[in-house]
Amino acid sequence: MNDLSDLRKRNLARLIDPKSFAVIGATDDPLRIGGRPIDYSVRHGFSGRIYPVNPKRETIQGLKAYPSISDVPEAVDAAIVALPAPLVAETVEACAAKGVGACIVFSSGFSELGAEGDAMQARLTEISRRTGIRVLGPNCLGAFNAATGWIGTFSSAPSVDPAVPGPIAIASQSGAYGGHIYNLARKRGLKVGRWVTTGNESDIELSECISYLLDDPEVKVVMSYAEGIRDGAGLKAAFEKARDMQKPIVMVKVGRSEVGAAAAASHTAALAGTDAVIDGMMRQYGVYRADDANEMLEVAYGCQHGHFPDGNKLGFITISGGLGVQMADSAAALGLEVPEFSKAGQEKMLELFPFAAARNPVDVTGQAFNDKDAIAKCLKIMMEEGDYDVVISFFTAVASLPEVAKDIVETLKPLKDSRPDKHLFFSILASEENRRFYESNGYPMFDDPVPAITAANGLMYFGRAFAAARGAPPALPAGAETVPAVATAEHEAKRILASAGIPVVREYLAATADEAALRAGELGGRVVLKIASPDIAHKTEIGGVLVGLEGDAAVREGFETLMARAAEKRPDAKLDGVIVCEMVSGGVETVIGVQRDPVLGPAVMFGLGGVLVEVLKDVSFRLAPFSVEEAHRMIREIKGFKILEGVRGAPPADIDALAEALAKLSVFAAANEETLDSIDINPFIVLPEGKGAVAVDALIVPATGESA
Amino acid sequence: MNDLSDLRKRNLARLIDPKSFAVIGATDDPLRIGGRPIDYSVRHGFSGRIYPVNPKRETIQGLKAYPSISDVPEAVDAAIVALPAPLVAETVEACAAKGVGACIVFSSGFSELGAEGDAMQARLTEISRRTGIRVLGPNCLGAFNAATGWIGTFSSAPSVDPAVPGPIAIASQSGAYGGHIYNLARKRGLKVGRWVTTGNESDIELSECISYLLDDPEVKVVMSYAEGIRDGAGLKAAFEKARDMQKPIVMVKVGRSEVGAAAAASHTAALAGTDAVIDGMMRQYGVYRADDANEMLEVAYGCQHGHFPDGNKLGFITISGGLGVQMADSAAALGLEVPEFSKAGQEKMLELFPFAAARNPVDVTGQAFNDKDAIAKCLKIMMEEGDYDVVISFFTAVASLPEVAKDIVETLKPLKDSRPDKHLFFSILASEENRRFYESNGYPMFDDPVPAITAANGLMYFGRAFAAARGAPPALPAGAETVPAVATAEHEAKRILASAGIPVVREYLAATADEAALRAGELGGRVVLKIASPDIAHKTEIGGVLVGLEGDAAVREGFETLMARAAEKRPDAKLDGVIVCEMVSGGVETVIGVQRDPVLGPAVMFGLGGVLVEVLKDVSFRLAPFSVEEAHRMIREIKGFKILEGVRGAPPADIDALAEALAKLSVFAAANEETLDSIDINPFIVLPEGKGAVAVDALIVPATGESA
Repeated sequence: MNDLSDLRKRNLARLIDPKSFAVIGATDDPLRIGGRPIDYSVRHGFSGRIYPVNPKRETIQGLKAYPSISDVPEAVDAAIVALPAPLVAETVEACAAKGVGACIVFSSGFSELGAEGDAMQARLTEISRRTGIRVLGPNCLGAFNAATGWIGTFSSAPSVDPAVPGPIAIASQSGAYGGHIYNLARKRGLKVGRWVTTGNESDIELSECISYLLDDPEVKVVMSYAEGIRDGAGLKAAFEKARDMQKPIVMVKVGRSEVGAAAAASHTAALAGTDAVIDGMMRQYGVYRADDANEMLEVAYGCQHGHFPDGNKLGFITISGGLGVQMADSAAALGLEVPEFSKAGQEKMLELFPFAAARNPVDVTGQAFNDKDAIAKCLKIMMEEGDYDVVISFFTAVASLPEVAKDIVETLKPLKDSRPDKHLFFSILASEENRRFYESNGYPMFDDPVPAITAANGLMYFGRAFAAARGAPPALPAGAETVPAVATAEHEAKRILASAGIPVVREYLAATADEAALRAGELGGRVVLKIASPDIAHKTEIGGVLVGLEGDAAVREGFETLMARAAEKRPDAKLDGVIVCEMVSGGVETVIGVQRDPVLGPAVMFGLGGVLVEVLKDVSFRLAPFSVEEAHRMIREIKGFKILEGVRGAPPADIDALAEALAKLSVFAAANEETLDSIDINPFIVLPEGKGAVAVDALIVPATGESA
Repeated sequence: MNDLSDLRKRNLARLIDPKSFAVIGATDDPLRIGGRPIDYSVRHGFSGRIYPVNPKRETIQGLKAYPSISDVPEAVDAAIVALPAPLVAETVEACAAKGVGACIVFSSGFSELGAEGDAMQARLTEISRRTGIRVLGPNCLGAFNAATGWIGTFSSAPSVDPAVPGPIAIASQSGAYGGHIYNLARKRGLKVGRWVTTGNESDIELSECISYLLDDPEVKVVMSYAEGIRDGAGLKAAFEKARDMQKPIVMVKVGRSEVGAAAAASHTAALAGTDAVIDGMMRQYGVYRADDANEMLEVAYGCQHGHFPDGNKLGFITISGGLGVQMADSAAALGLEVPEFSKAGQEKMLELFPFAAARNPVDVTGQAFNDKDAIAKCLKIMMEEGDYDVVISFFTAVASLPEVAKDIVETLKPLKDSRPDKHLFFSILASEENRRFYESNGYPMFDDPVPAITAANGLMYFGRAFAAARGAPPALPAGAETVPAVATAEHEAKRILASAGIPVVREYLAATADEAALRAGELGGRVVLKIASPDIAHKTEIGGVLVGLEGDAAVREGFETLMARAAEKRPDAKLDGVIVCEMVSGGVETVIGVQRDPVLGPAVMFGLGGVLVEVLKDVSFRLAPFSVEEAHRMIREIKGFKILEGVRGAPPADIDALAEALAKLSVFAAANEETLDSIDINPFIVLPEGKGAVAVDALIVPATGESA
């Protein structure tokens, strides 16, 4: 098995970086599917061997053609299969027999068409798994590597803009989307050196491609398009690898909306994985999720130099007060800091431009037009005297004068060399030449300052993610119980969670009125009584919960009331008695829980309690298990986070206790991955700082069981 | 006064569309401030007379120069003043004496510098008000009209891209921002025929310019940049005019964030107006607020043809399933509908492309590449069989083949001619020629489908705004009281609001325990008792509220308890007795109120109750007065609106009653505009449908008074 696994790995490399390739179904017409890869590769100077396969021709595009793959004089690294779907499987089998490394299957007519196609696609999977030959696709647009001139695609993209080597790699499930972002990227001036599309993923999945691309030292950023995740563990591993290598992944993952998810489900044959869980996973591993192609491009563009700041602070310097305000607004909308310029910096700036507004945004006013020598100087002050991670400058046409540009670059060079993590972005509507001059000196260029802020936000996102303390998940307590085979009653769920280290409300099961009164006395103060029955899930609906009871008599009477109600409303239900439980007052009501994602495994959810949060869907997710540090980040992601810090005079909540509970819940969920479907702790009350937190109600649903 | 007002109006026209102009401080150098307007206007073929004024020169740029404005042989329509600030006032005075229509003051050094500059600027205002001469600026970049070749600016913008006549007008407070969006617009292929910047607005304010530009039949869209509103009534009038004329205004208003607002305040000398109120005002009058320049451009681009749909429904047709999902997601994020394609349409589509996904997004798949004749056909089916307001199509390179483009345009022509309100946008990375071909046939072109959705959203926004039922504000009830001169106690506030038609909780003031018990009996059920005192604002802090009292004894005891507490805690306070008030249970807690904006007048606020809403700032505003229809729109703007529709099994709330109350509150606020500072009704409980709504607590603060 290990040999096969090694072979599969080697064959992936042969696919993505072949020294030789065949095109089965090759054509003379360079615009047809079987013609394009040959034409493209020749025109891009592919240095390896190309073997057209076509039984009806002697030559194809000037190259000797072969009647079949078995006639080709070597076991090529990659074979492009441009044949009708029914012929694909036997061809891949023949390629495997020949020792071909991998097949790229352009052909459509597989899983995207439903059951019939499924069977044909399953054959490809089976051949690959059995023989070690790799399969890209079917229904994909192939791959290219501009550095070697291997252009194994029939996408029109490289005909619009020829591929040039560069720091950007694209890995896309959709060929058309991959081609689209390639063309947009080229139009934006980004150099995309590598490109892979995975289509139906009968064998090679997106994450394996990402992981492979990350290993290329030339690749600085991976842009990825995903619509459904098939290999959750693989994706997690690829994300972790990117973070460890400090290489940004910028991903568009579609299917966020209901209509979108429905369209994605009909379009792909993938199991998908829940969008909100994937979203949380991206934050967890420091992958930037872009909403669309343009956002993806701006972020990738700003991150391609490979230097990452570790802060959140933006400085703005502008020749227009209005653009300064615009930049401040746009930064605030992204939650970025725009801190005041240092006193020393303000003084120096005002020396240079007496009428400047020097706080930040620094508005040097139209004066800068009159003193062009001062532009480089004011930028130097801004970069040196401000503790900014990224400075964005708006200087309209004045900064695109060649002498000003030269002055700026020379003046800032020592700083640029010594502190590559301090970034300066320019918003200039510049000429192509001017743009290249700034870019080649390490300064990203934007037409408008708002996309520059988008890019800066991405850059700082990665900086934080790469620098963030990771920590280990807490240990599972020694006596932790496991998820039972059948659904639990509320009090059992809490007992199990308590054994895993989750704080739960103090409570007792009481079988008699006497016992209830005794327990209430032990708890002291006011108590809550609830019917305890594995058969009654929705206790409140039958009046099965009494709150605020105090004193022996009230508790005894409460016990009898609940018994009577249960007997009347649910005569069939098995009754364990009542739960006597302390009344928790104060604190912030939250909801924490676990959902088992079919692809990504158990994910922990966090949100505030209350109906409004439900309407606004203000929750965050993380894959289990995770550390307390990660839990803290997760908690801070929700829009309503301020509530936990204390508003309207309320004390701050015990966020540490909440974070610890989330991390412990994640460890419990991971330990019970196979047997757990979901956990719902609602409410989980976070008490004021120093006072902890408690689960008040809980439900555990086993993987095969049903809710009680 | 009326003569002067007419004169001012005529002089504004002379400024924006002059037949002759002088440049005071003219220079030979076409790159200097006093040189550029002459050079630009000559090069743009200005057909009127140009008079350089410079006492030291015989000729300027080949034109005869004059020593002073009084030596110029005619009373020019416009005089550009390019002189140091201290010389400006006397120059404007001389221009007024000469009969010049208006001065454009480029000079800085006025209000933007503080008190000293204020005085100089006030002189300009005074001269204008007294003589009728109009002043644009100071500290502005002037104006241009590409149709006449009048380029009265020293902005570098027209040197980067010469001005060409076209349907877009720009009105900007900031000259630099105005120049920036002009250049971005030109780069995007938009034709900006008119451009005005107002700078410090010593006389001519943004809204007057907008209003003037709207009157030009060539102008189809106004793009506007604002940072602070000085003339609220003027802006409101301009917005109303635009809506009546069905001409879109797309506005970037900066200062939304705290940092941004602070920067704007230091940058402009304007009173500003509260951002949230301006935001509500834009929605009220159907002005589209863009977050940044690019959003503004895309919306203006999509709206320049002047045809507006009246719905919200988007259709997508794509050659890539992935892009289809992307479009669905992006549409959902904007709250747009992506309804299923009609059955007939789906059938026809599947006849054409058997492997298509035909629901919407309609994915015609890569098959379309193989049958190029079918592209126009599938677009026709999409446009004819779908009840879509805007269809967005993604066809990559295939739709930019000249024969395909021609086929599409010809096939769709009859539909385009008969239903110009049904829009088709293309996302194609097209050649310049191809782009122009589609554009000239009325099809907007986008590189990526997401900006196309932004534009479609803007188009549908205007469509809805222009078609929306406006209605009249309700009448103020005959017996409505007015806002008193001093702050009111709670029960007085509610009595006054009740007189204005706002439903309030049933309650009585009781001076004695007997009276309290009697009133409680009349109300029936459980009641609330509150201390009634004009001196005690925060009743709960001294235990001055008792809830849920039932029965004679409890009410009497409650009365005595409150009296005792008041005597103990606030022995100084005047006591009116207690308020006996019905207990309201159920319903949705909301907050409604009035804020008097210093520039825009009284604005009504609406939001849900509760601390989370406060944290999320989920409220909406409208300027008073407004209709019930407008109130309905205002209610639906908040993110938490679904709560009112009923969630988690709660019944839908009586939204009609809420809307009526908001409209009546707006009428009361407008009627008391001069004397009112604020009203806070919190909570205003909206009961289940058909059961109305009630103000439970209320506070009215008069303009000069303080909170009780």
